[in-house]
Amino acid sequence: MEVVQVLHMNGGIGDTSYANNSLVQKKVISMTKPITEEAIVNHYSNSSSTRLVIADLGCSSGPNTLLVVSELVKTVHRLCRKLGRQSPEFQVLLNDLPGNDFNSIFKSLPSFQEKLRDKMGPGFGQCFFTGVPGSFYGRLFPSKILHFVHSSYSLQWLSQVPDGVENNKGNIYMNSTSPTSVIKAYQEQFQRDFSFFLKCRSEELVPGGSMVLTILGRKSEDPSSKEGCYIWELLAVALNDMVSEGLIEEDKLDTFNIPQYTPCPSEVKSEVLKEGSFTINRLEVSQVNWDAYHSDFSPSDALDDGGYSVAKCMRAVAEPLLVSHFGEGIIEEVFRRYREIIADRMSKEKTEFINVIISVTKRG
Amino acid sequence: MEVVQVLHMNGGIGDTSYANNSLVQKKVISMTKPITEEAIVNHYSNSSSTRLVIADLGCSSGPNTLLVVSELVKTVHRLCRKLGRQSPEFQVLLNDLPGNDFNSIFKSLPSFQEKLRDKMGPGFGQCFFTGVPGSFYGRLFPSKILHFVHSSYSLQWLSQVPDGVENNKGNIYMNSTSPTSVIKAYQEQFQRDFSFFLKCRSEELVPGGSMVLTILGRKSEDPSSKEGCYIWELLAVALNDMVSEGLIEEDKLDTFNIPQYTPCPSEVKSEVLKEGSFTINRLEVSQVNWDAYHSDFSPSDALDDGGYSVAKCMRAVAEPLLVSHFGEGIIEEVFRRYREIIADRMSKEKTEFINVIISVTKRG
Repeated sequence: MEVVQVLHMNGGIGDTSYANNSLVQKKVISMTKPITEEAIVNHYSNSSSTRLVIADLGCSSGPNTLLVVSELVKTVHRLCRKLGRQSPEFQVLLNDLPGNDFNSIFKSLPSFQEKLRDKMGPGFGQCFFTGVPGSFYGRLFPSKILHFVHSSYSLQWLSQVPDGVENNKGNIYMNSTSPTSVIKAYQEQFQRDFSFFLKCRSEELVPGGSMVLTILGRKSEDPSSKEGCYIWELLAVALNDMVSEGLIEEDKLDTFNIPQYTPCPSEVKSEVLKEGSFTINRLEVSQVNWDAYHSDFSPSDALDDGGYSVAKCMRAVAEPLLVSHFGEGIIEEVFRRYREIIADRMSKEKTEFINVIISVTKRG
Repeated sequence: MEVVQVLHMNGGIGDTSYANNSLVQKKVISMTKPITEEAIVNHYSNSSSTRLVIADLGCSSGPNTLLVVSELVKTVHRLCRKLGRQSPEFQVLLNDLPGNDFNSIFKSLPSFQEKLRDKMGPGFGQCFFTGVPGSFYGRLFPSKILHFVHSSYSLQWLSQVPDGVENNKGNIYMNSTSPTSVIKAYQEQFQRDFSFFLKCRSEELVPGGSMVLTILGRKSEDPSSKEGCYIWELLAVALNDMVSEGLIEEDKLDTFNIPQYTPCPSEVKSEVLKEGSFTINRLEVSQVNWDAYHSDFSPSDALDDGGYSVAKCMRAVAEPLLVSHFGEGIIEEVFRRYREIIADRMSKEKTEFINVIISVTKRG
């Protein structure tokens, strides 16, 4: 599987689209807003540039895509008014893999830009949008053009399924029963990928430029701890059930692995320090319920919803990966079962995603 | 009709897609290559920049989109080797209206970039691609970031159907029978649009930056002369036939007008001089057969092909406009009739598109 070719959120604006099933991701963006704001305010207060180039990496396609950007633009515009400065020319670079539905984003831009101008009022500078297709595990932009990089819920995706996970049979991601070699393979893939990500961005950012990265992660030092793996483990349960009923070939399941790694804060920190181009301003952890609608653990809510929204959210994220490996035929059935399994777990335990957030500045 | 929302070439890679029906446009790009090459060589020879930012305006979606760019990149790379200079970092900005099929372009980029690197060999710098959705009759890019602008067969499209063409009944574009007020309305719309285009680009280009613009045009000073209007007049014949058979409402036809203007060289020159930001290096005219396959007038070829390729080319260009006004239902029938009419005309007369090419440099 070529991750660059296959991985993308479900496109369009239909029932199973990412656009309509990304409330968790939206909530995480909102939760991180104070850190993002602080970072861009600090950067821009110390900058004399009349242009502000912002990149969102892994922008996906949907309301979240332009949410981040409009918040950043608003914050800077407000700051400018406070400081009595002219608002800069904004250039917004929206990046995702080439399979992302950029067409949907682009079609929504004219009305978005009109609303943005109305909301900002007089004195608001121009705001230019561009789409940048490609993997962020490689150079995406010319040297030293970026002022601010944002990325939310994207860097847990690896550039590839790690080599050496063939003996992870019955699983689709590592878990506590995975061989040590599999866990190591995932961990080292993350280290290589994240380190190269940092190197590429350090070439693209101006000195003093900032990044705020929110990564789906874990708190525990143990890579195979439940908090990072559980959501995929439950999908594996659904797939294994279908194998045992002869609906999926066992070999197909054994060769399917999710190209993801959910790091803990110390791993993120360690790679940043090793790479050496950035100083760390903040490193934080937060959590969000699988079901973003409900902020507290409430078994009855989970039962009401029947795991529906969580399964749909995961479908919007994982469907293209599954389709590319198993074909279209199994999708409805997999997610029907997955929903039931999720509903059951949510009614019995507190289920959360862990967010690792790091705010860094490029050294001068 | 909102041109920005409606106008785009047929997307995808299917039978009626622009990608598969754009040989005329390809030929025009090839014919203009010496002028484009000369312009970028002149620009880059006098530049000390380590970055080269190239914009293609109205890039569409298909083989032509990346053809222009790869030729430009090749030319500069060859020049660098000759001059013993390091190849610059290329940044390629692909612009079209938001309805353009950017997804198809983006999906083809990974393999295109790989081939490009292979072809260029060692010493070739990075080449970054971005998509920029929006109307070029407005600012698209931050100030002074562009080095080279290319646009082929795009600037004949107006920003809107001119006001004051309501009395152009039975026509869908101006022709020799149109009221003078209609012709004047079209002409003035072109002047306003092209002048504003020049102003926007002059703000975006660096001093010394260059533009090569190829516009579907005419030779004659008379805006309603046949050379610029005939291809639409024949489409109007097909539509009028369908009105007389009750397949299209007369009122529908009367309110449909093509947002296009095919200028002559002196009109183009006059706007450039009036706007004042550019010096003119070249202003040329060329022509290309409606049927790009055949370079000479050959009635038998036209009969063989039955007008098929020309009608398909025009369908790839005009279908979204027609669908938005008349609905999907009439499309097959319109283009079946159009094909017959075109075949008949091509067998009896020499049918050509006229290209007006202008090469300019931004004043220092």
